[in-house]
Amino acid sequence: MNMDRASLIPALTNIATRLRIDSVRATSEAGSGHPTSCMSMADLMAALFFAEMRFDPKDPKNFESDRFVLSKGHAAPILYAAWAEAGAFDRAELMKLREIGSDLEGHPTPRLPFVDVATGSLGQGICAAVGTALNARRIRSDYRTYVLLGDGESAEGSVWEAADVATMDKLDNLCGITDVNALGQSRPTMWEHDMGQFERRWKAFGWHAIVIDGHDMAQILDALAEARSTKGQPTMILARTIKGKGVSSVEGHQGWHGKAFKKGEELDRALAELEKQFVPVPEGGPAANLAGQIPKPPSKPRGVDNPKPVAPPVYALGDQVATREAYGTALAKLAEADPRVVALDADVKNSTFSDRFEKVAPERFYQNFIAEQVMVGAAMGLAARGAIPFPSTFACFLTRAADFVRMAAVSNVGIKLAGSHAGVSIGEDGPSQMALEDLAMYRAQPNYTVLYPSDAVSAERLLALMAYHPGPAYMRTSRPKTPVIYTNDDTFTIGGLKVLRESAADVATVIGAGITVFEALKAYDQLKAAGTAIRVIDLYSLQPIDQAALVAAGRATGGRLLTVEDHYAAGGIGDAVAEAVAGAGLTVQRLAVREIPRSGKPEELVERFGISAKHIVEAVNQVKGKK
Amino acid sequence: MNMDRASLIPALTNIATRLRIDSVRATSEAGSGHPTSCMSMADLMAALFFAEMRFDPKDPKNFESDRFVLSKGHAAPILYAAWAEAGAFDRAELMKLREIGSDLEGHPTPRLPFVDVATGSLGQGICAAVGTALNARRIRSDYRTYVLLGDGESAEGSVWEAADVATMDKLDNLCGITDVNALGQSRPTMWEHDMGQFERRWKAFGWHAIVIDGHDMAQILDALAEARSTKGQPTMILARTIKGKGVSSVEGHQGWHGKAFKKGEELDRALAELEKQFVPVPEGGPAANLAGQIPKPPSKPRGVDNPKPVAPPVYALGDQVATREAYGTALAKLAEADPRVVALDADVKNSTFSDRFEKVAPERFYQNFIAEQVMVGAAMGLAARGAIPFPSTFACFLTRAADFVRMAAVSNVGIKLAGSHAGVSIGEDGPSQMALEDLAMYRAQPNYTVLYPSDAVSAERLLALMAYHPGPAYMRTSRPKTPVIYTNDDTFTIGGLKVLRESAADVATVIGAGITVFEALKAYDQLKAAGTAIRVIDLYSLQPIDQAALVAAGRATGGRLLTVEDHYAAGGIGDAVAEAVAGAGLTVQRLAVREIPRSGKPEELVERFGISAKHIVEAVNQVKGKK
Repeated sequence: MNMDRASLIPALTNIATRLRIDSVRATSEAGSGHPTSCMSMADLMAALFFAEMRFDPKDPKNFESDRFVLSKGHAAPILYAAWAEAGAFDRAELMKLREIGSDLEGHPTPRLPFVDVATGSLGQGICAAVGTALNARRIRSDYRTYVLLGDGESAEGSVWEAADVATMDKLDNLCGITDVNALGQSRPTMWEHDMGQFERRWKAFGWHAIVIDGHDMAQILDALAEARSTKGQPTMILARTIKGKGVSSVEGHQGWHGKAFKKGEELDRALAELEKQFVPVPEGGPAANLAGQIPKPPSKPRGVDNPKPVAPPVYALGDQVATREAYGTALAKLAEADPRVVALDADVKNSTFSDRFEKVAPERFYQNFIAEQVMVGAAMGLAARGAIPFPSTFACFLTRAADFVRMAAVSNVGIKLAGSHAGVSIGEDGPSQMALEDLAMYRAQPNYTVLYPSDAVSAERLLALMAYHPGPAYMRTSRPKTPVIYTNDDTFTIGGLKVLRESAADVATVIGAGITVFEALKAYDQLKAAGTAIRVIDLYSLQPIDQAALVAAGRATGGRLLTVEDHYAAGGIGDAVAEAVAGAGLTVQRLAVREIPRSGKPEELVERFGISAKHIVEAVNQVKGKK
Repeated sequence: MNMDRASLIPALTNIATRLRIDSVRATSEAGSGHPTSCMSMADLMAALFFAEMRFDPKDPKNFESDRFVLSKGHAAPILYAAWAEAGAFDRAELMKLREIGSDLEGHPTPRLPFVDVATGSLGQGICAAVGTALNARRIRSDYRTYVLLGDGESAEGSVWEAADVATMDKLDNLCGITDVNALGQSRPTMWEHDMGQFERRWKAFGWHAIVIDGHDMAQILDALAEARSTKGQPTMILARTIKGKGVSSVEGHQGWHGKAFKKGEELDRALAELEKQFVPVPEGGPAANLAGQIPKPPSKPRGVDNPKPVAPPVYALGDQVATREAYGTALAKLAEADPRVVALDADVKNSTFSDRFEKVAPERFYQNFIAEQVMVGAAMGLAARGAIPFPSTFACFLTRAADFVRMAAVSNVGIKLAGSHAGVSIGEDGPSQMALEDLAMYRAQPNYTVLYPSDAVSAERLLALMAYHPGPAYMRTSRPKTPVIYTNDDTFTIGGLKVLRESAADVATVIGAGITVFEALKAYDQLKAAGTAIRVIDLYSLQPIDQAALVAAGRATGGRLLTVEDHYAAGGIGDAVAEAVAGAGLTVQRLAVREIPRSGKPEELVERFGISAKHIVEAVNQVKGKK
């Protein structure tokens, strides 16, 4: 902003004071919250929102708008205060902070139009900011991303994953600011006010680092300008601040984290002290109405995305193709059909087959090396800005990002996760490489779509459906090759299933997904040879689930439902089917992995851990006379 | 080891060659594995095992023994080869690598006596090594911990969490070695052979860093000696190596990650080249039998732990106490009773009440700041060495360590996790702070004990049980105060439950745990006033679960079972009960949180998300006429 500093600085100082007052008042009204965590960063927020960023308070989602991510989400009140000050909504709303009827929640969520991703689990916002910065490159925009972190937060490993990726990707459109107020929740932070500790780390990780006094407005403005002009690397502004700045009785005091001022004398005294901090600003001068002068994003026509139809699968029945490979094939087709689709890897692209995407669209393929948290976090940022991101790795290693998976649910953001090498059927690599709890993890989140294809055709079709289905989704793929059982024009739906074998004489319904579909089909053949008919279902969509079809199959087969899954017993296919049919009074018998497995050949393990055709045949023979 | 270098170095070089040969042969025999990842680190392993560490190959668990953690677990074959070379077992066993009948799994697991924790999920071994190093301090031993990492692995954020904690704790008994072979799985690593990138990072994080040529035995020995004499900080040896070192056709070649040499000509040629690398060693000289000269750990008498009885709870019925607070009280009592008990925090000790432990036993209280992965990983290392570790934080933030939770299951190691602030009942802080999928996460692991107390007495009693129950365990605690409903001498068992209300006229069984027990009791009172009797169960042990008692209750109440939980619908109490009673043909109706919640008052949220007494009453009234 071109304005003489003598006028600008007092105006910004007054905004900072108002933001402090708003934060203090709102948290006192709510009776909880983190006013002192807001007060340390008030000067930084004033400078960012009213002398640095370009945005339209009335159109915060504008695709050319600068992004601001509050990684230290517990300072939500000052985020809300800044947007109110900018004119996004009426300041009176601030007093509804944390009320059930208000979207001004305890920590920011995308219920608010100016919040890209929910924060409040520390160390995640900076990963999402890497994603919004990558998105600018994707849409060829010069918008910038700002992310504000806490100092305590910097102990989270995910912060350093983000630091590495931002450096590798030369994200000079990304500016971090660390509010070094030296106090954590329960004690001083690891490095307190030793600014060199921060500076050394960020520089070692390849960032341009600038140490400033976070309450000196001129230093803040200079640092932001320096960040803007720094090319080829991201910048981290390390701001030395005082927690509770502005109210002398709490400044730098322990025991004031997450504590509101008590209404009455305590609050009144705090507010009185803050009110005194307003300074004179030349009346009618250019700085008198900074909110009115926020630079708006350029009004460029938004390119039309115009996705083409995704090329259909081309397999022959019986072809042996691993679903992970079909995933890679489908992802490459999707890349060609839709420029919004991006893929993220954690150095396993040749195992997940996401390298097929890279070959087709290298500029939309983001390598995160072995760092799953930033991979998923960046995907969240990308998705929030209109990309359709597919982060993938071994299903077991996506568990590394479980807390990001959780926060993506809170954000209800459209990340499309894919985990390969699920279950004991990976074989010799052993239990550390086997995902056996992934279905439980994704199914637990009520807004995740959970898909589990058994063959290449269904994998390709489900991938395309997943891309355009709103909200977060997970696809589980398998390592072993499995035969193609569907024709290329077979149709699939999210929430559907396929009945693969069916007759009026069926004595039981066997429900599998992924590799166990083939164990069920083998069992079908063996039982048929012995004169016993069973129904076989491929439950490729676990969530949502086709309740009606499962109940119908159960009723048609004497109430005998048997699930078989390459997953632990809890949280997977067995539980999904059991809940779906419970209302009809039906119960389910489950075959699942019930102990920690070990290395061995895939077929040995499928046998040893009780999920093979042999076990299905035994279970069917046991139950067929009952009920 | 005091031996002249001229004799020692050729002997170590020959061991390194044998380790390469063993790794190549074993993986070729198995038909899979990572020989080239072993070959880059063979010289490092030879020096560590045969000229540095003190241990007894026949008694690897000796409490005074140096520890070695293979953080890059995919190099398992060379770990096994080193132990065979040391005499721990017959070298012929190596050829059973990855077979179902062998404990020499694809990645190391504690099925083997010389493996403390399972590795194979990268970035975890160094966290466990922090734990074994802390354990040395706990038992006042001068044993040292060595941990070998991959370079690609260093992108994992958990590595930097461990780096910070090791520095804060001044763990000069910890020596890391990074095998910088410059090649990842799918491509060159982030920093390839730019050793300065590594050196800058480790120095910035406070470690003593030494850059060496990882194939120069003299440099390796010097670096290990330098690490041993470095005081007040941990040391990281950064070893520049060549992937596939020793076989020229693969040295430094991409496309050779996780690939065994094909038996036949390809293998024969590799072995022939390696065989030529043996060098002359003075016969009968001191270095001729290095394995026989490994320094044994000092034979000190192991102190007897002699735990005292844990002080019983002292509450009055009706006292209002949050289970998280009772957890803190019980943990402090346990600290006084048993010197093996340690506690780990991630800067929330004043919310989880683990600060009560710190007051009693500050020397056994380990602060990890906001870094949940290293907190849980260090607990794994501590548990593997005989401590009884209690890592705790908000239940939702333990999710950050989900992959460590998974690997602790693979290790079957006795970590005792506690997660506070579960569910929507935390109120105003909002969904980012609410654990609503934690029960699903722990229940998915077949060997986890999962406990969920409702009042202070049961919290204290269950905590003491959990401490001495083998294997990993999780306790879920709540934020709100709840009334004490048990007498101080009430007894609880792992796998038990309590029937709180019971009559012959009960029309349904309502099963809750934690805060929903009190909703169920309120519903009981309201229904009773209207003439309807229900059975109320406090399901404080979800895993194992009291199947017989649940079936009995179900049968006694017309098959009408209703669960109510402050958790999402999948993976929690509903699923646990449903599976337990399915064999008896009983089904369960569930009340659970079925959408992403929001901020509000605890009681408003319990109401809004369908798990209040009102919802229980409605559900009972709906089902009581049925069946």
